[in-house]
Amino acid sequence: MPRRSAAQPSAVAVRVDHVDSPEAIAAIASRVAGAGGRVRTLSTVSRIPPADGAGASLAEIEIEVEGLSEDDLVALLDGLDGVRAVHLTRALERIFGKRIIVIGGGAQVAQVALGAVSEADRHNLRGERISVDTIALVGENEIAAAVRAVADLPRARLLVLAGSIMGGDISAAADEIRAVGIPIISLNMVGSITDHVDLVVSDPVQAGTMAVMAVADTAAFDLERQRGRRF
Amino acid sequence: MPRRSAAQPSAVAVRVDHVDSPEAIAAIASRVAGAGGRVRTLSTVSRIPPADGAGASLAEIEIEVEGLSEDDLVALLDGLDGVRAVHLTRALERIFGKRIIVIGGGAQVAQVALGAVSEADRHNLRGERISVDTIALVGENEIAAAVRAVADLPRARLLVLAGSIMGGDISAAADEIRAVGIPIISLNMVGSITDHVDLVVSDPVQAGTMAVMAVADTAAFDLERQRGRRF
Repeated sequence: MPRRSAAQPSAVAVRVDHVDSPEAIAAIASRVAGAGGRVRTLSTVSRIPPADGAGASLAEIEIEVEGLSEDDLVALLDGLDGVRAVHLTRALERIFGKRIIVIGGGAQVAQVALGAVSEADRHNLRGERISVDTIALVGENEIAAAVRAVADLPRARLLVLAGSIMGGDISAAADEIRAVGIPIISLNMVGSITDHVDLVVSDPVQAGTMAVMAVADTAAFDLERQRGRRF
Repeated sequence: MPRRSAAQPSAVAVRVDHVDSPEAIAAIASRVAGAGGRVRTLSTVSRIPPADGAGASLAEIEIEVEGLSEDDLVALLDGLDGVRAVHLTRALERIFGKRIIVIGGGAQVAQVALGAVSEADRHNLRGERISVDTIALVGENEIAAAVRAVADLPRARLLVLAGSIMGGDISAAADEIRAVGIPIISLNMVGSITDHVDLVVSDPVQAGTMAVMAVADTAAFDLERQRGRRF
């Protein structure tokens, strides 16, 4: 099941500075909906306390919207009550693209990142946009929670599990996120995890390389055809 | 200027499956606001087309809200028209924490990541949550756009520029994102960029290590005291 991206390539993005009231986001979303647009992502980039200690705090948000043109979106929001500034930015999909997420022990995560970054470089030179994002963690509960949270990360396309021993609840979490369409490559390691992933690779640099090849449109590598194999 | 995080530690997170109408997000944000909460982040995780080709498409979103308890948030949204399922998740701040962003050429980005991941591992073992996120890119325009977009990335705390030559519009972009509170470490390299960053480090592994130390609460390293130095 290929995963749908958080925002279509047609999404347009704007930065909005607004008075930080509870109603602000509802008002913005409602204005966008009234014109037929859909807010697909929103992130609060910063909050700005009132300069003199009184008055209203401001919040600066980044939103991505589908179904509207850039000009229409800016025009809609510019006149909205409580909005102080609007300017166009670029949807993160177009800048940082597809994300490979690497989770596990520091030594292995670093080696997987080495392979993945080098391979992403080669594809990005040919017009792809692939990011390699990592977190080094220890502990079954911590890693299982991070694996489950990959489903919530915008633009996450593939997970690499890089460690020496993983199983138990991590394997359960792996099943869950594969079920929502995020494939997993794991290193060859101790524990049940290797029975709950799409591909097992012994060399961490190669695991990172294959992870990028699996999501790159510019690569001739089909994870479907390798599923269940060990290298 | 220390940068404010996208969501306070007190933010609560839920996954919501809803009918994918233009009005859906406005209705959710309005319900949250009505109870005094503020939507701080929203990401569309997937869309689910109607099973039989007819009927309504669903969208699955992840939202983080401040000012409400987990139970109140679930109860509020559960009864909302068009909402099919609500369940609690964990705010990404608590899972992936602070983000170091590394941008530049593949060879250097990989070495910075090696240092940063190894150092993040050491701090995460002591209770921190620090992620290391990378993108390998070539070209002044492409890198400058990515630098500017770091300001839009949730939880981004520090940028490392890893390459052999950077200047021109990249230096202008560096000034802009430092002005919004994101410090920059660059490798020692050709071009004007080294005059537009907080710290210049020649060894990429050490640059990655210092980047993590600069954002870790568990490290005795103060970027303010090293500003403008070259190592």
